[in-house]
Amino acid sequence: MDIHKSIDKLAKIDREVMLYENISALLGWDQETNMPPGAVEGRAEQQSLIQGVLHDKMTDPIIGELLGAAGASEEQPGGDSSLSDQDQGLVRQYFREFNRQTKLPRRLVQDFAAATSNAQPAWAAARKAESFAQFQPHLERITALTREMSEKLGYSDHPYDPLLDHYEPGMTTAEVSRVFSQLKKDSISLLEKISHADQPDDSFLYQPYDSRLQDEFGRKVLTSMGFDFNRGILTESAHPFTTSLGKDDIRITTRYNEPSMSSSLFSTIHEGGHALYEMGAASPELKGTCLGTGTSLAVHESQSRFWENIVGRSSEFWEFYYPALKKLFPEQLKAVSRQHFVQGINKVSPSMIRVNADEVTYSLHVILRFELETALVSGELEVKDLPEAWNVKMKEMLGIVPGNDAEGVLQDVHWSAGLIGYFPTYALGNLFSAQFFDTMKHEIPQYDVHVAKGELEVLHEWLDQRIHRYGAIFTAAEILHRVTGKSLDPGHFSRYLEEKYSAIYHLD
Amino acid sequence: MDIHKSIDKLAKIDREVMLYENISALLGWDQETNMPPGAVEGRAEQQSLIQGVLHDKMTDPIIGELLGAAGASEEQPGGDSSLSDQDQGLVRQYFREFNRQTKLPRRLVQDFAAATSNAQPAWAAARKAESFAQFQPHLERITALTREMSEKLGYSDHPYDPLLDHYEPGMTTAEVSRVFSQLKKDSISLLEKISHADQPDDSFLYQPYDSRLQDEFGRKVLTSMGFDFNRGILTESAHPFTTSLGKDDIRITTRYNEPSMSSSLFSTIHEGGHALYEMGAASPELKGTCLGTGTSLAVHESQSRFWENIVGRSSEFWEFYYPALKKLFPEQLKAVSRQHFVQGINKVSPSMIRVNADEVTYSLHVILRFELETALVSGELEVKDLPEAWNVKMKEMLGIVPGNDAEGVLQDVHWSAGLIGYFPTYALGNLFSAQFFDTMKHEIPQYDVHVAKGELEVLHEWLDQRIHRYGAIFTAAEILHRVTGKSLDPGHFSRYLEEKYSAIYHLD
Repeated sequence: MDIHKSIDKLAKIDREVMLYENISALLGWDQETNMPPGAVEGRAEQQSLIQGVLHDKMTDPIIGELLGAAGASEEQPGGDSSLSDQDQGLVRQYFREFNRQTKLPRRLVQDFAAATSNAQPAWAAARKAESFAQFQPHLERITALTREMSEKLGYSDHPYDPLLDHYEPGMTTAEVSRVFSQLKKDSISLLEKISHADQPDDSFLYQPYDSRLQDEFGRKVLTSMGFDFNRGILTESAHPFTTSLGKDDIRITTRYNEPSMSSSLFSTIHEGGHALYEMGAASPELKGTCLGTGTSLAVHESQSRFWENIVGRSSEFWEFYYPALKKLFPEQLKAVSRQHFVQGINKVSPSMIRVNADEVTYSLHVILRFELETALVSGELEVKDLPEAWNVKMKEMLGIVPGNDAEGVLQDVHWSAGLIGYFPTYALGNLFSAQFFDTMKHEIPQYDVHVAKGELEVLHEWLDQRIHRYGAIFTAAEILHRVTGKSLDPGHFSRYLEEKYSAIYHLD
Repeated sequence: MDIHKSIDKLAKIDREVMLYENISALLGWDQETNMPPGAVEGRAEQQSLIQGVLHDKMTDPIIGELLGAAGASEEQPGGDSSLSDQDQGLVRQYFREFNRQTKLPRRLVQDFAAATSNAQPAWAAARKAESFAQFQPHLERITALTREMSEKLGYSDHPYDPLLDHYEPGMTTAEVSRVFSQLKKDSISLLEKISHADQPDDSFLYQPYDSRLQDEFGRKVLTSMGFDFNRGILTESAHPFTTSLGKDDIRITTRYNEPSMSSSLFSTIHEGGHALYEMGAASPELKGTCLGTGTSLAVHESQSRFWENIVGRSSEFWEFYYPALKKLFPEQLKAVSRQHFVQGINKVSPSMIRVNADEVTYSLHVILRFELETALVSGELEVKDLPEAWNVKMKEMLGIVPGNDAEGVLQDVHWSAGLIGYFPTYALGNLFSAQFFDTMKHEIPQYDVHVAKGELEVLHEWLDQRIHRYGAIFTAAEILHRVTGKSLDPGHFSRYLEEKYSAIYHLD
């Protein structure tokens, strides 16, 4: 078959696959936001039908033929080098997914689905009972099946490689180990310094704040970031998330029932960062294709964390926004100066729960999980020894030990859902964000001034031009190199933290 | 093929078809309630994909084979008489839909879809410009294609028959003409009497009423009707509607931005009536099958109009509910007695717009449309003469003449959407509701007492046992006969109106 004809056919399949993906996303979004509780079983049947259609389409032998005609191989997953960047991106995406889905035997996929389906209620019950023992047999089963998947998918270095690669294409266990080892050292050292400084008071964040006013403020910030309410909406759900339901339908959720007002606000900004990436990736050229989305989870997380932390928790941001916030909440913020507010939202304090962690300790929570996951997958660690290993590492990295398994090894949903290999992307997102940021500041010399004036669109425009509009055409490593001229270097993030927290905590 | 094996296979196809129908309903519901405006084009592509899948499944020759094996024919559309009622219902549904979809040539279906797709914006623009001439060529095209569809579908008496039958299975033009002729005479006569009586004041309904309190009151009534919030939700949309997104996921919408508070409340109760029917029809036996839904549009409308008008606008209903309403809106209802309130919400006054019409004049609006539609389809009336014919009939039935086409012939969306044959079901719903009601009152002798005590669940239980739980197993005519022992008799509704409005207007 002619190479261009094969690309056209692949693009046609892709358009239909993406429509089914959109529909599946709507089924998921609706379940988290509107669906009545009794509808769970029916929704599972609908979702299963669509997933079955998607699986059949992705494993259709015609895709293998089209990929072959396009010249795709392990050495050249993007196909013939004469193809355009966009066409190579398309071929690479289908080559990855087709290989993955055809390498895994149907029996293994079904066993894994059954194991995770059983494990999730068991995990919830175990967490409630604060008892890892209840969850242990489920995690043993999931770990065994995950190892088997790793073998089927194949690897040359570490059995964790194909798991990690599923979430972060092109990333390796060795590379993560290298950057995390440096990040761990730097973070622990900074944390040590902070522990000797005076702690700011952040009790003003834990008062009642009217949720409608919080919503109003969140929308104001989203609008100035450039969130396009013609192509997206903000609603509430139990756990904040971002999802794309179509080329012009990017939805984010937040929650207003947090103990701290700042958790809600920074959730909104965080998801807004994901949404800007999705909106920009669905550029006129890439709209409705598998390339019109973020290129990897780490790059995605770099966008959300950039807006949440680097921008949203910066002193400059609140130079512009604090008066508006104070106007909405005059009672709550009466005695709180802007400097005091910024210190409060940046308070650093080792704690048990990852999702509540501050900017400095967050990565340590992730590194802990990465170290445990790789040891489980390689067989160095047995599931039964996990709680003990968890506690030892908590002590080592954060200096605290969980009082029970619920606030320790059982806190995250990921393992019960079979998402082994996912965690590292959270901390990699921090590293990407700081490395991008250093280039941005260089290319937008007036960065501080723009933020202090609330001109967030300038930042958005830069991100759009340098990162978003390429969607998934380039890999994470390629995008990083195109933007920053370098490969991943954890020093950017460590220096960013050092500088920011030295100022906030008056460290010398 | 063995007859029972053919039924099993048909049931299996049906389960998958229903899941796709649910997904299509979600795509529609979301579009009306949450979707951002820019997502219209992408949503149309998703909906078109699912509709294509449904068309392919419904016209698959295997269905013809299975229906043949089940013994289905024009004479016996439910298949072999040895089959259970439920199995005959299943066969009948597929026999109808398979015949319809295979009789209509693909070219005709596509032309019709294109014509209505073009006609809808043209209709909206014409209505805005108050000019029928702009819409005329579109309606001519739709009428011509509709006539062609009628010929392809076939009929023995009137070309309107197969159009009507699509919305109201088993109903004929002759039967509708018969009952509408009586209803028209009775309604005009009652209207004449009312026109000489004193008009109640209803200005208190047109004040500002807080939408959150309206929502609270609506939910209170829905709960007491038996709306199951575990299997359904209430949200807002521009036009109120009911839709089933799954066997345990029945959603209704209302709107709170009406000039009259009662419009919003009675919309909520009306849709609640539809929802109770859907919830009951999705009984444990019928859940997830094509029979787990209302059997016809007229029977559906009988349920919504029963709750909205016969219950919701009755004096007994407000004996229980008026104190609660007055407590929520003490300022607005300060000077309004219960009797005054009931008179206000039952004010009868000929007006231009069908959807705003009162209980007495509503059916006349529908009869007018039925007379015009049948004349258009038979060729007795030309599209170009429609506005004149409309105005003549308005004068004849309601004694008023529209000032322009927007408040006359252009007011409804139906014709631009190609829904010729749909209108009669609205007034048939009134007739069914009153005929069911006469049996209900006979079988629940304490009916008035229950309603006056707010014990609406007693009514719901009766409807569920006698009508809802049969879903679409029996046709509308069969259900009517099983419940009331008779065929359709418009006298029930006329007597109900006569009695109710004689009391309200103190007629002798």
